Amino acid sequence: MFTQEEKDAIYKVIYTRRDIRSFLPTPIERNVIHNILQAGHHAPSVGFMQPWNYILISSETIKDRLAWAADKERRAMAIHFEGEKETKFLSLKVEGIKEAPLTICVTCDPTRGGSHVLGRNSIPETDSLSTACSIQNMWLAACAEGLAMGWVSFYKKNDVRDILDIPPHVDPLALLSVGYTDTYPDKPILEKADWEKRSDLDNLIFEDQWGRKSS
Amino acid sequence: MFTQEEKDAIYKVIYTRRDIRSFLPTPIERNVIHNILQAGHHAPSVGFMQPWNYILISSETIKDRLAWAADKERRAMAIHFEGEKETKFLSLKVEGIKEAPLTICVTCDPTRGGSHVLGRNSIPETDSLSTACSIQNMWLAACAEGLAMGWVSFYKKNDVRDILDIPPHVDPLALLSVGYTDTYPDKPILEKADWEKRSDLDNLIFEDQWGRKSS
Repeated sequence: MFTQEEKDAIYKVIYTRRDIRSFLPTPIERNVIHNILQAGHHAPSVGFMQPWNYILISSETIKDRLAWAADKERRAMAIHFEGEKETKFLSLKVEGIKEAPLTICVTCDPTRGGSHVLGRNSIPETDSLSTACSIQNMWLAACAEGLAMGWVSFYKKNDVRDILDIPPHVDPLALLSVGYTDTYPDKPILEKADWEKRSDLDNLIFEDQWGRKSS
Repeated sequence: MFTQEEKDAIYKVIYTRRDIRSFLPTPIERNVIHNILQAGHHAPSVGFMQPWNYILISSETIKDRLAWAADKERRAMAIHFEGEKETKFLSLKVEGIKEAPLTICVTCDPTRGGSHVLGRNSIPETDSLSTACSIQNMWLAACAEGLAMGWVSFYKKNDVRDILDIPPHVDPLALLSVGYTDTYPDKPILEKADWEKRSDLDNLIFEDQWGRKSS
């Protein structure tokens, strides 16, 4: 059971957590990194397959190569935001790989647990969804530890496989930048930048059937 | 910033949360359901697209139909676990849809936010991964509220679309059973049932490259 104070702390971290793209060079203590990884490893996983690995990248050379892959993709993506939206997109800072002292590549191995994983046999992508739950645990733990985390999703997976020597069947699901920051925003960066607004929760809830609202 | 007590509460919920398949009929207060959905809605999402909807199912008729779809899939899947593993699989309780007073179908709409969502343009499945982060937030909030949650992944998506009238382009990503329970286990159900063991975290961590261990 959880006390009211404990519940408050849990909701506090859920509401405080943000995607961060600006980092200080301050190094992160090993035990704090370990806490974050333990939180990630205690995520739920389909058939308890635990499909994740965590590659801890602190080498400047490798971070530079990851930043190159992300920037290449960012420039390619900008072409699809034509006109005004392109200018706005290019003004956004979409990652902070070089600044952050640590990048964690979280991977998903679809072969973990054998050919017939309970539950994954019905919905194969539940392995990736489990890995996303692991990332969310890490994100909340990082926030609780006073750290900032950013999920970078601008890259070609094969570039990241090449750079980190990841086998072809393993999915480099996310690059997470981790570090301390002096600019922890109270709202999502994309909301502050007038890119998107938060939806009204009531509009996202249906009762018993798609599209049916409570009377 | 988080105090030590707040950090402890956050790790406590991360370590306590379990996938539950046995529920009491006790109804859930509306404000508690609202807290869980607010937690889900405050998950990160790629390009802030918030691709999720939450269908709250309390109708006995509709829960029966979902339970039918899950049971059909469970029996089909059992055929792939041949021999001893099949007997063991069939002895496992894989869902508690009929028992739980509430089922939440969490969906992912890949068209939300338009054709070129920031970040999703590079990795399309980030919409589903965002929705999984929403589910993990809901799971932690449910645990904090003293509730049990189970993620059912035994179904054909088109059965669930038919039952809940979900449009063909929207993904019924998960069925979550929610309710109170009198059997909250201290370890994952599949670990208790000797189906799978928890991996050693150290074996899942690499340094700078896939397969490289810290010296």
